[in-house]
Amino acid sequence: MSRDAFLLELAQRAPVLTDATAREAAATDRSGLLPPTSPFAVVAATAVDHVVATLHLAHEHRVAVVTRGAGTGLAGGAVADDGAIVLDVSRLQHLEIDVANHRAVSGPGVLTAHLDAEARKHGLFYAPDPASAAISTIGGNVATNAGGFRCVSYGVTRDAVLGLTTVLPGGAVVQTGAGTVKDVVGYDLTSLLVGSEGTLGVVVEATLRLLPTPTAVATASALLDDAAAAVAAVAELGATGIRPAVCELVDGPTLAAIDDLRGSDWSARGGALLLVQTHGSGAAADIDVVTEVLRRHAVSVATTTDEREAEQLFAARRDALPALEKRGRVLIEDIAVPRDRVAEAVDRIGAIAAEHTVPIFVLAHAGDGNLHPIVLTDAGPRDPLPPAVVTAADAVFGLALELGGSVSGEHGVGLLKGEWARRQLGPEATALAERIRSVFDPHGILNPGKLL
Amino acid sequence: MSRDAFLLELAQRAPVLTDATAREAAATDRSGLLPPTSPFAVVAATAVDHVVATLHLAHEHRVAVVTRGAGTGLAGGAVADDGAIVLDVSRLQHLEIDVANHRAVSGPGVLTAHLDAEARKHGLFYAPDPASAAISTIGGNVATNAGGFRCVSYGVTRDAVLGLTTVLPGGAVVQTGAGTVKDVVGYDLTSLLVGSEGTLGVVVEATLRLLPTPTAVATASALLDDAAAAVAAVAELGATGIRPAVCELVDGPTLAAIDDLRGSDWSARGGALLLVQTHGSGAAADIDVVTEVLRRHAVSVATTTDEREAEQLFAARRDALPALEKRGRVLIEDIAVPRDRVAEAVDRIGAIAAEHTVPIFVLAHAGDGNLHPIVLTDAGPRDPLPPAVVTAADAVFGLALELGGSVSGEHGVGLLKGEWARRQLGPEATALAERIRSVFDPHGILNPGKLL
Repeated sequence: MSRDAFLLELAQRAPVLTDATAREAAATDRSGLLPPTSPFAVVAATAVDHVVATLHLAHEHRVAVVTRGAGTGLAGGAVADDGAIVLDVSRLQHLEIDVANHRAVSGPGVLTAHLDAEARKHGLFYAPDPASAAISTIGGNVATNAGGFRCVSYGVTRDAVLGLTTVLPGGAVVQTGAGTVKDVVGYDLTSLLVGSEGTLGVVVEATLRLLPTPTAVATASALLDDAAAAVAAVAELGATGIRPAVCELVDGPTLAAIDDLRGSDWSARGGALLLVQTHGSGAAADIDVVTEVLRRHAVSVATTTDEREAEQLFAARRDALPALEKRGRVLIEDIAVPRDRVAEAVDRIGAIAAEHTVPIFVLAHAGDGNLHPIVLTDAGPRDPLPPAVVTAADAVFGLALELGGSVSGEHGVGLLKGEWARRQLGPEATALAERIRSVFDPHGILNPGKLL
Repeated sequence: MSRDAFLLELAQRAPVLTDATAREAAATDRSGLLPPTSPFAVVAATAVDHVVATLHLAHEHRVAVVTRGAGTGLAGGAVADDGAIVLDVSRLQHLEIDVANHRAVSGPGVLTAHLDAEARKHGLFYAPDPASAAISTIGGNVATNAGGFRCVSYGVTRDAVLGLTTVLPGGAVVQTGAGTVKDVVGYDLTSLLVGSEGTLGVVVEATLRLLPTPTAVATASALLDDAAAAVAAVAELGATGIRPAVCELVDGPTLAAIDDLRGSDWSARGGALLLVQTHGSGAAADIDVVTEVLRRHAVSVATTTDEREAEQLFAARRDALPALEKRGRVLIEDIAVPRDRVAEAVDRIGAIAAEHTVPIFVLAHAGDGNLHPIVLTDAGPRDPLPPAVVTAADAVFGLALELGGSVSGEHGVGLLKGEWARRQLGPEATALAERIRSVFDPHGILNPGKLL
């Protein structure tokens, strides 16, 4: 079947866009990876039936499908070239808050921050909180198993997903998870689908766990001499028995970039920022213990129990990536290491930057051992990356594995990290994963070339 | 190859027991299901190599393998007859507490309570806490995705597993999970293996997440008129915003059985018991809120911040199953329902018991909506179950599905619930699960007839 005939058939069953503007807009995501060509069509799904029709026809005619939400992915998982159609599910935005059962039932196109805001109207909240929450969707969060600020005590997206409705290649619709808090019937296909980056099926509805908003919240912000001092403080916090809800680190060079963007003066006041938040009836007592530890390491420490004031502090942290993107093209890494190797990781990332003379900025979900080393380059968006940037980035990946960690803590593998993912997993686990992928997608139409 | 030739070859590479005592002891578990015959041999593995050799030879010669830990499973997952060998991994008991990283690396044969006790020596604890913790193993907990008392705030076994080392049919050894708190590289094979009931591979090592022991603990025990009053109290607790760490319910008839076993006087003091525990620096403040709610529903409420005293209260709850087992043969159900259907579930379980004139006792992890309706019968251990018992049990399973729940919240499917599991999952998810099973175990040697 020709492409034209395929599109004609598809257009009878789903809204299909083939104009250059739509195709170009759907070609890339926030990874900065620009494919040489654009996808040959975009399905702008407004109903589950459109997803079913697309996966039925694409399966039958062996057409590659790249699923897309808001396009805020950082690993190239939604990048699509002329060899594929893009299935845009961002318009599937139904949302129901089930207050009695502390659940939300959400379409994939709902913005994460919107879901959280709707839950908060009922005294509930959605715990996963990627820095991109205001612009990223539940579907994308599920596809990448997104993390965020509050993971350190509440877990990642996978921990919040109670059930999924997923369309498989061929068009079958499968329900996984009972939607109850506990359920051990059969294999955990829900967890398998979470983080599968659009390679197993297309999620059209998620049942998500909500939690009661904490009875109290307290926040400490500490300015320290440098990232090493911040890491030392976090290590000492780990021994107090306090479980912070948030523990975020921003290094000095990143603070300077945030200052440039926002006109703030963080970098004049310290060489690294640490934000620690505690939740629950003991929040104030806990933040006192936290503050006592921080004072031993920091230049200055401030605390607040005002949530708006805390949100302003977090806004600075959320500005980090936009601030760096404003300075040039960024290559965003996302390694995770055991907590007792975080200090060594920060130290050696500095050494890698010095050795290859490339600037590497460091943000970290410090309580989780999840670091975002961000390499800045002045290469243009379509230029090949300079060899020093590639070598430095590879050295950081290698470091993560050497320290017994992971090459991705929360952003996913996408197009960026396939080679390194295979290296991390090893041949046995990679082979198993490939065979599982074939169970879901025997013709290999879903996001080919991604993930593995 | 004859059985004798197979056993001769196996015995050269692993410790094999073929005496009747060993075979009979390995035939059943705590489900009470007694197979007509015993397994034809038992491998008493003392090293990972023995597991590898067993799965290599069994795969090659198409011999069924039933993996076994402490044999405390409640769904018949470890039941084995003459058609299988039993692979006993209970002697694989290596254990390392990685204090700096809040992790444990454990063999499958380590008792759950032992791991927890070792962690507590370092100010850490292992959150999953099945009622059987003192007698069940980490391997069994992983195989069933065990739950327990503390799930309501800390999650189930799956949430505590950071990585697994698993031997596959054929003898390949696969590592899954990076062992870091966050890791999104590849599919979540770790979560797939957790709860797979010995049908995908044999776990020989688990890397588990430990948490700092709570800075404070407070416990409330309430005696109420009946289970319905207890459920009403739990529903009201859910609206307070307090997240209890434990919320356990024992109904009146079960309290009477506990009294018979231990000489206590619970049933003289009330018709249902509710145990609520709060953790963290706000534990005492939280328990005050809890107590205020409980007083509106209860006959009497007592609180304590003494952990030993609390443990004595929980001991009564842990005695519930032994107390019922002393009265006769039990059929243990394990349904989960949405929280707003718990009251209806308790009410209708009572109606099912009355309609079929069979005694059904109810324990519940009430905060999770996970109920254990336990049907008591005077049938002998090898007798067929009386029709009224089977009909009542089926009615309870049907009720779970009707209320939008699950036929197993934490015990697993095993031999007991295959038919109901298929009904819950539906044909699409069942077919997917069967194909995934074939990826791991193409010859179907692992726990055939179980789970699906």
